[in-house]
Amino acid sequence: MSQTINPISVTTRARTTASDASVLARLCEIVGAEHVLVDPERVEPYAQDAVKEKFPPEAVVLPRTAQEIAAILKLANEARFPVTARGGGVGYTGGAVPVEGGIVIGTDRMNEIREINADDLYVIAEPGVTTYALQQAVEAHNLFYPPDPASYKTSFLGGNIAENAGGMRSAKYGVTKHYVLGLEVVMPTGEIIRTGGKTSKNVVGFDLTGLICGSEGMLGIITEAILKLLPLPEATRTVRATFKTMREACACVTRFTRARVTPVAIEVLDRNAIRAVETEFAFGLDQNAGAILIVSVDGAVAEVEHASRVVEKALREGSGYDVMRAVTREEEDRLWDVRRALSPAMKKFGTLKLNEDVVVPRSRVPELIERVEAIGQSHKTFVVNFGHAGDGNIHVNFMCEREDKEAVRRARDAVRETFAVAIELGGTISGEHGIGYVKAPYLDMAVDTATIETMKRIKRALDPNGILNPGKMFV
Amino acid sequence: MSQTINPISVTTRARTTASDASVLARLCEIVGAEHVLVDPERVEPYAQDAVKEKFPPEAVVLPRTAQEIAAILKLANEARFPVTARGGGVGYTGGAVPVEGGIVIGTDRMNEIREINADDLYVIAEPGVTTYALQQAVEAHNLFYPPDPASYKTSFLGGNIAENAGGMRSAKYGVTKHYVLGLEVVMPTGEIIRTGGKTSKNVVGFDLTGLICGSEGMLGIITEAILKLLPLPEATRTVRATFKTMREACACVTRFTRARVTPVAIEVLDRNAIRAVETEFAFGLDQNAGAILIVSVDGAVAEVEHASRVVEKALREGSGYDVMRAVTREEEDRLWDVRRALSPAMKKFGTLKLNEDVVVPRSRVPELIERVEAIGQSHKTFVVNFGHAGDGNIHVNFMCEREDKEAVRRARDAVRETFAVAIELGGTISGEHGIGYVKAPYLDMAVDTATIETMKRIKRALDPNGILNPGKMFV
Repeated sequence: MSQTINPISVTTRARTTASDASVLARLCEIVGAEHVLVDPERVEPYAQDAVKEKFPPEAVVLPRTAQEIAAILKLANEARFPVTARGGGVGYTGGAVPVEGGIVIGTDRMNEIREINADDLYVIAEPGVTTYALQQAVEAHNLFYPPDPASYKTSFLGGNIAENAGGMRSAKYGVTKHYVLGLEVVMPTGEIIRTGGKTSKNVVGFDLTGLICGSEGMLGIITEAILKLLPLPEATRTVRATFKTMREACACVTRFTRARVTPVAIEVLDRNAIRAVETEFAFGLDQNAGAILIVSVDGAVAEVEHASRVVEKALREGSGYDVMRAVTREEEDRLWDVRRALSPAMKKFGTLKLNEDVVVPRSRVPELIERVEAIGQSHKTFVVNFGHAGDGNIHVNFMCEREDKEAVRRARDAVRETFAVAIELGGTISGEHGIGYVKAPYLDMAVDTATIETMKRIKRALDPNGILNPGKMFV
Repeated sequence: MSQTINPISVTTRARTTASDASVLARLCEIVGAEHVLVDPERVEPYAQDAVKEKFPPEAVVLPRTAQEIAAILKLANEARFPVTARGGGVGYTGGAVPVEGGIVIGTDRMNEIREINADDLYVIAEPGVTTYALQQAVEAHNLFYPPDPASYKTSFLGGNIAENAGGMRSAKYGVTKHYVLGLEVVMPTGEIIRTGGKTSKNVVGFDLTGLICGSEGMLGIITEAILKLLPLPEATRTVRATFKTMREACACVTRFTRARVTPVAIEVLDRNAIRAVETEFAFGLDQNAGAILIVSVDGAVAEVEHASRVVEKALREGSGYDVMRAVTREEEDRLWDVRRALSPAMKKFGTLKLNEDVVVPRSRVPELIERVEAIGQSHKTFVVNFGHAGDGNIHVNFMCEREDKEAVRRARDAVRETFAVAIELGGTISGEHGIGYVKAPYLDMAVDTATIETMKRIKRALDPNGILNPGKMFV
């Protein structure tokens, strides 16, 4: 099914038992009629995510509690209609869109932060809190929630957990799953379970928390999360350098390790990325450069002073030039402006951006980028690469015009070849975005049959009627 | 079943189809006759773990490869006999002992470190490598594998992963599961799967790695692990302080956080622990003290100098006395000697040590220990508490004579009450040791019915014939 989806089409509204008057009446009973949306214009905002393909749900239901979601799922199992949970709706693989119709459960109203515990270093929050709101709330207590997906201003915690979101800080701090201590989850069949707890050590039964993180809304709907916090680092320092070649830039990553420094972020831009932002915004970057690295360290003031000098030295020794080390917050912001300018700068290269987030062992990044450039050339597709050099997670962006079917086909061929290269280099097809329906046709490139069958066994055991988020992950 | 096990009994050897001549012949075909042990004296070492109750397997099979284990599990499903995987056999909840008979698969021969990758910060190892051997091997490359269960010299990586082992460093570095990037696993039905990969970001399909970590050998047998490494910290510094009360000691833990220092280890000894080691070894400790804290920091030299002074100041301001800050390696060892002396010092208080590893939010540790002391008194049982104050994981040791059935009964009652208190304080019944058969009767105190049922559904889906490690976790 997923293979046949046309990127420029708007799917007509599906029709399942969710549209039955009796079902809609029951949904209204459960959450209140004002929280069941069926008008096309009110349902419309819930039809797509960042992929921008529309799959309008038959109804959008906006519950307030886990108990309401449990009742909805029991009804869905009785009447057999699909249910898709939605957070901020900013994913890149369609995880939150109802490709097989049915209802969308929006977690918009479940946005309470229930407890911030500075002594025990955890926060308890509902799934509809944005990552940004959570970060702001805990930083007011000098606490730190490290996961920082690029979409953090609009993404919801529920979606972050369901997708196991990454971000720039993961080179030092890991990804979302490393901060999830416990969950309340409504299972596909409507039971409410509690996994994990408030402590970072907990080995009581199977690690269902681990299983739910990254399960893309297919094994349960998260209704509460207990998240681990750290003390807020005192300071950060950022250093930026330009390189003639990508190989020189990436070689610096292991230089940091050998100097025993673990930067919080190591962001890389490739030659096309540099030209794109320079053409658009005239930062004064070297247009002939092969790569730019932006490196941040954090910690106590004395520590970041030391570490940022180690980083600066490593960058210079690694043939970096135009090296700039920021000391003030304003200087730091200026160094990062180049990275922030990327998305707007890329728009002129096409209305459709196939933004793939492959990941390879970090020493293989230069080879990945060289081969991706060659793939782009052979398919006559402009490609911009940037991303997280510290953990090998590169955002490969093939640009084309949405209406040019031939160009879209070429770009899609380039994507498939890029996935094959990432796997060949010891990596895989997604570091942050997940599978959803967009990458479902490629899952078997990265994961063998027995492993996929194990995943399917778990899905069938927990969701025998296939209610939750059908049409995702497996084709 | 587990409730009726008598701690001083030796279970007679069970008899299942594993003892059939035809099955033994097939096992010999798979791994070679010299790697199938059936003589009582050769099987004996595989009959128990640190719990010291004997459940002799019908045969011990020592495979070399995942393919051999796959063949054994296919045979087990055909002939229907239990299979229990074993690492170092040093667990505290019986995870590696065959309580329902059948065979034990010993991973002793699967002890190769396959790759240490300093550039990409991972190591690939077989399950039979000891934690210590792995640490030594990677430290030779200036790399660091943080998980450090107390049994690290003899425990195997496979067991560490299956039990999601903790340790002292988890206050800063987390537990074993945070370092498992990917696994090769033989499923209960004999398929070989590969989970995760070599990169720290990987969101391709359900996180089976997360599910297998801590699954206590019930969902699969680990045959290879890809583990994440860090750069080896340049230095460590240790500070020790004595306190009149446990409350004063534990209050220092949040003082560190407020000073934005995250120590690598914060170990605590309670009054009985102090008296026990002082009586036995005469370190010169204050016999009337209520608690001792031993705090280590690690990092770059400048960083640990700064952090250890912050720690020292916090300990003094928190009414700590006899404060000692180690600068040399020898001084550091001396500070830790007190902690190392605990196990030998406790032996004189009883031949049976019920060593429970409850965990609570760290600010609740003083209340936990006060209530555990009261429980010990009401059950006339000597109790020694020590453990990881940084993450709230306290080792509660009720001491009694193995032969004194009445004293054992009282100690067991004290254990159940201790579990109830840990849960009441927002914690749970195990932070490090797992459930096995020892804690199986208590699982439903900590986990609700719907959550246990979810775990059972996964077990049934992946192990329909109940082959792997029966008699564990669920009663």
